[in-house]
Amino acid sequence: MTPGVVRTNARELAALLGGELVGHGDLPILRIGPLAGADASTVSFLANVRYAAQLSASAAGCVLVSAQLRDAVSQRPSAVLCADPYLAFARLTQWWAAQLRPQAAPGIHPSAVIEPGARVDASASIGAQAFVGAGAVIGARAVVGPQTVVEERAVVGDSSVLRARVVIGAGCRIGRRCILHSGAVIGADGFGFAPHEGTWVKIEQLGAVTVGDDVEIGANTCIDRGALEDTLLEDGVKLDNLIQIGHNVVVGAHTAMAGCVGVAGSARIGRHCTLGGGAIVLGHLELVDHVHVSAATVVSRSIRQPGQYSGVFPFDDNASWEKNAATLRQLHALRDRLRTLEKKFP
Amino acid sequence: MTPGVVRTNARELAALLGGELVGHGDLPILRIGPLAGADASTVSFLANVRYAAQLSASAAGCVLVSAQLRDAVSQRPSAVLCADPYLAFARLTQWWAAQLRPQAAPGIHPSAVIEPGARVDASASIGAQAFVGAGAVIGARAVVGPQTVVEERAVVGDSSVLRARVVIGAGCRIGRRCILHSGAVIGADGFGFAPHEGTWVKIEQLGAVTVGDDVEIGANTCIDRGALEDTLLEDGVKLDNLIQIGHNVVVGAHTAMAGCVGVAGSARIGRHCTLGGGAIVLGHLELVDHVHVSAATVVSRSIRQPGQYSGVFPFDDNASWEKNAATLRQLHALRDRLRTLEKKFP
Amino acid sequence: MTPGVVRTNARELAALLGGELVGHGDLPILRIGPLAGADASTVSFLANVRYAAQLSASAAGCVLVSAQLRDAVSQRPSAVLCADPYLAFARLTQWWAAQLRPQAAPGIHPSAVIEPGARVDASASIGAQAFVGAGAVIGARAVVGPQTVVEERAVVGDSSVLRARVVIGAGCRIGRRCILHSGAVIGADGFGFAPHEGTWVKIEQLGAVTVGDDVEIGANTCIDRGALEDTLLEDGVKLDNLIQIGHNVVVGAHTAMAGCVGVAGSARIGRHCTLGGGAIVLGHLELVDHVHVSAATVVSRSIRQPGQYSGVFPFDDNASWEKNAATLRQLHALRDRLRTLEKKFP
Repeated sequence: MTPGVVRTNARELAALLGGELVGHGDLPILRIGPLAGADASTVSFLANVRYAAQLSASAAGCVLVSAQLRDAVSQRPSAVLCADPYLAFARLTQWWAAQLRPQAAPGIHPSAVIEPGARVDASASIGAQAFVGAGAVIGARAVVGPQTVVEERAVVGDSSVLRARVVIGAGCRIGRRCILHSGAVIGADGFGFAPHEGTWVKIEQLGAVTVGDDVEIGANTCIDRGALEDTLLEDGVKLDNLIQIGHNVVVGAHTAMAGCVGVAGSARIGRHCTLGGGAIVLGHLELVDHVHVSAATVVSRSIRQPGQYSGVFPFDDNASWEKNAATLRQLHALRDRLRTLEKKFP
Repeated sequence: MTPGVVRTNARELAALLGGELVGHGDLPILRIGPLAGADASTVSFLANVRYAAQLSASAAGCVLVSAQLRDAVSQRPSAVLCADPYLAFARLTQWWAAQLRPQAAPGIHPSAVIEPGARVDASASIGAQAFVGAGAVIGARAVVGPQTVVEERAVVGDSSVLRARVVIGAGCRIGRRCILHSGAVIGADGFGFAPHEGTWVKIEQLGAVTVGDDVEIGANTCIDRGALEDTLLEDGVKLDNLIQIGHNVVVGAHTAMAGCVGVAGSARIGRHCTLGGGAIVLGHLELVDHVHVSAATVVSRSIRQPGQYSGVFPFDDNASWEKNAATLRQLHALRDRLRTLEKKFP
Repeated sequence: MTPGVVRTNARELAALLGGELVGHGDLPILRIGPLAGADASTVSFLANVRYAAQLSASAAGCVLVSAQLRDAVSQRPSAVLCADPYLAFARLTQWWAAQLRPQAAPGIHPSAVIEPGARVDASASIGAQAFVGAGAVIGARAVVGPQTVVEERAVVGDSSVLRARVVIGAGCRIGRRCILHSGAVIGADGFGFAPHEGTWVKIEQLGAVTVGDDVEIGANTCIDRGALEDTLLEDGVKLDNLIQIGHNVVVGAHTAMAGCVGVAGSARIGRHCTLGGGAIVLGHLELVDHVHVSAATVVSRSIRQPGQYSGVFPFDDNASWEKNAATLRQLHALRDRLRTLEKKFP
């Protein structure tokens, strides 16, 4: 993870990223980093022209910037003009990582346990102490990290990567080119019980989890298996860490959720939605496509129109909050008092 | 997890569930599923007579319904009239799962590590790469999943199931017929420190965790060990995923908590309570029996009366929320202005 | 974990804790416990003189109390007067634990996998089925618990303890005398994507995580690796369970966070701060030193002044909450109506 062993230059980067080189193409670029703290061997980027002041303060040897900033970079050692510098930066990180990080070697670590009847592609890599259950299928070039558990009949698609200590439950299906981070649990039982004389009778969860292609699932995130049918994450969904997805939820394609989100059972989240950190969606609700929920907002009814939705108590110094919160408990009464006054003076 | 290898019929189901058969008893039933999407070989259920319209729209070959709906099902291929169709459905899922899922075979996987002095019942099943520490006890018919850790002197009761990658901390006790899902951590240290000259001095957590019978604990949920005495989950408690239970909490029998709940240290939750997803209970509070806390509600003082309690900022489109939230920070001042007006016009 | 095998007396405890013995020094003390339920063989403590009534109700054979309570304890079997009884109690728990819990034996469990090129100090203890990757370094007296994964080039400092089933990601660095609880994931990828034509393009996370000395990290807590530079926890930070720390966050020295906190990417939390359970800090914000955030508060802008900050909807019985919450959605309009009235009667 120590940047520094990559050696490139602005000319190479311009070619790699499909951008236009400005300035010297041959200066050695050895590092990738933010504008602040950059030196002459660093490639950096400016995602937003509004922050162009950061650019002039930086000693970065090469910067990825918008073509709008052609003049601003004309005196710099070098720059690469890109249609979308943030996208170019993303692609550069991918190239950089590929230089730095060795590919997982195909094959099965001798300490792994592969149960009879499992099928592991010859090009897949199974890490130390991993477990692959009976009837499970591990696709081509897939990587199963150390101590990861793939239970019986689960399927891991081609080129997907399970980091260390992931659990894929029995019969669950992970698509292609997915990344699952450590501690993620796919396919634990959904939370379903019938009340009976003051106790809870378990509803066995007979569905599984289906995950599309190009999905990323964060560390210690949980996706429960469905009660009767499958819980579903469509293609391109991105989930951060410590997220809870209840049984039979459907998350539409290319929807992203930040850390600590909770989505209760049978909710249907549309495509191209975003949920901010700590947001909660109650059960059985429906959110249409292109809904954006602010952090820590509790979605308590379905959302039928695209847009941005929020609902957070504004924080304040404790004394002010206490006074306002106490008054809030009388708000309905205050409204009635206001009405009374209004009726006196119509 | 692929439904389909069960073959039954309505007559068998009526006998199994103690219900009354209506219509044909011999039609083959091969699947269990929701009313929507059901076909002639599917058994489905209607929990609530209010949704009887779903029934008429469904092609399900057999339905579990209330006896109130006797007329509504008289023209269907078959039905089973049940006193409590949701309970009947729960029991049916248990029977279905038992048909589909092979019992874990008794015995110890050769890759498991059983430390000297551990006692594993001969009828228990210890999965691949599991770890059972010195002095630990695994009861009759208990199942310890792959890569699960049962630390020294921990006790797992008869017929309890620990799925893959659970941790039971040293000296903790799990009752009988419990189910612990993957990633659950029972018995990490409670969070206790004494402040000292700007630093924190650790209070070693000398208690353990005691879990009663018939408790279910969700994936990646954490139950901390007590500081001096044990943290306690009584019989029949059901916890969803990603829940945090602090040290010395007591959760009363048959209380259920949805995902992402946090209960701070030394809180005492009564029996037959429910906590909605993301609810938080502050430390040292007491909730009596039969308290129901809505999702995302923060319980900041003890609750002495049974009932439903809530406290969530209502979400709105972002622009409306911003205006209301900004005004909320002046609410106490608004109240004073209202009072001033009222005094003018008493 | 069963208290009871320690045998001491008040004289020994006074010497150990640097306190003043009052009463009999030779009575056998066999247990440590709270005042309630204590007996003549129990040592207990009173942290706050306000709760002195608990003292008179307790049968504890020895109590750690403030010197202010010299008179109140004069008739007790024994007491130890301490400058800070809660601190003395913390130290006593440490001594007690050291008596009860065997030290992990140095050496490598035969079932552990140590990759070529890893360096494990001879005094370190590597648990059953642990994994230490190529180039990783395990310091002197460090303890790596069963099934813990230390990935390639990660560093674990001297005397640090990783409990069962921790993951330390590639290249991450843990300081000295740290404690990491089960299920903690250090160094999963930060959540970074560039939007592109309705999809998300991954930004590879090229930084790592750096953790200082004397840091404690709770069960199933996640600390993401930085995008370009490292995510940083300074010395003495204490994190409870199920906390999410985003990429490039800096947590200042001796800051403590209770369970279920979420800190979004690039936030900078000062030193000596506390965050209550379930609090959320949005991305890129800065909190100065000595900021205290109440439980479940959402910090949505930077905090430049030390102090206590809060922002929680006060919970209520459900009917009252519903009325107030509905009115809250009209609050801005109510303010306008109040203004209208005020203008009529200036």
